[in-house]
Amino acid sequence: MRCFVPFAVDTPKSRLAPVLRPAERQSLATTMLCDVLDALETSGFAPTVLSTAPVTDDRVTDRAAVTVDDRALTPAINARLAEDTPTLIVMADLPLVEPADIQQLVDSEAGISIAPGLGGGTNALVVREPRFRVDYHGASYLDHRQAAVKLDATVEAVDSRRLATDIDEPEDLVEVLIHGTGAAHDWLVDAGFELDTTGGRVGIQRDV
Amino acid sequence: MRCFVPFAVDTPKSRLAPVLRPAERQSLATTMLCDVLDALETSGFAPTVLSTAPVTDDRVTDRAAVTVDDRALTPAINARLAEDTPTLIVMADLPLVEPADIQQLVDSEAGISIAPGLGGGTNALVVREPRFRVDYHGASYLDHRQAAVKLDATVEAVDSRRLATDIDEPEDLVEVLIHGTGAAHDWLVDAGFELDTTGGRVGIQRDV
Repeated sequence: MRCFVPFAVDTPKSRLAPVLRPAERQSLATTMLCDVLDALETSGFAPTVLSTAPVTDDRVTDRAAVTVDDRALTPAINARLAEDTPTLIVMADLPLVEPADIQQLVDSEAGISIAPGLGGGTNALVVREPRFRVDYHGASYLDHRQAAVKLDATVEAVDSRRLATDIDEPEDLVEVLIHGTGAAHDWLVDAGFELDTTGGRVGIQRDV
Repeated sequence: MRCFVPFAVDTPKSRLAPVLRPAERQSLATTMLCDVLDALETSGFAPTVLSTAPVTDDRVTDRAAVTVDDRALTPAINARLAEDTPTLIVMADLPLVEPADIQQLVDSEAGISIAPGLGGGTNALVVREPRFRVDYHGASYLDHRQAAVKLDATVEAVDSRRLATDIDEPEDLVEVLIHGTGAAHDWLVDAGFELDTTGGRVGIQRDV
């Protein structure tokens, strides 16, 4: 099965700006991508990074082929879906993903298998229905379900906390510190982040 | 296997105050409890509600036995663990839970099987190790792992988005509107809540 991991090279993870400088956000985004590529490789996939610009970081180029497509996420993915199916698409900001989670998604025989993100996004999906096209705007999980129904395709939602945890906001880093076992977890620890359990809700603090 | 669902009768779900009046929070909390009890019953359990005060709502008393223990959550649960194991404990604010999720937790053979909540909590657990005691304060998932290790007990973390989604904050209601199929979903719809997909992040709005 073909497998793509979309990656935005320029100014990634802007919502992490309150806790990370631009170069740090770039570095963490690349590190999370590496965790995703590692899980995919262990699952037997040879993923292609679908990047908005050329990637020079050899941690990425050592792990995967890179295809540059400078269009927005939705048309870039739809161009790949028009080429061939089945296709697996996994977002690059899922540092908790483990091979078993990928397997769960791939094992489903539905026309469209979706791993929803928290907040209604689509964090990973397998498209087996050749006519299906994505639209990542807004509550894309619900839109993708509706689009599948319109094509008379079956839909399955995979129940995975790890696939649901995309890293966008500072509070999402809590999940990586608690559950992460890969490079992104180590990156955060090396950068001085630790859990803050002094308040009612677990947060992060940074020792710099 | 014994099964308890702790329930705080007085002023539940205070962090939902920005969007729900006290009587509404009480009603939604009871409705979510009913969804949890239904999932447990379908899974073959006869759950006992471990309540801080007597429960009069017949939606609850029709579904489960009620034991009153007015202590805080941690000592109330530990008193049950001291009586007998294995014991299943499921929080009352998990309206997305489905029987398959309970089954996944129960199927694990670890001394302690935990379904972590987002933010480091412990949303459900099966205790097979008789000496294990809970401590729900702070990042209890990590504390429970550590406590199990100290007892030389095996630990397994269940990977379930639905068990990870406890409802505390207004933004958590987004998950119920998107994924809910039970009474809590219907309660929110009847109360006029709907998704707000006009911004960058999916939110809720209320038509009152």
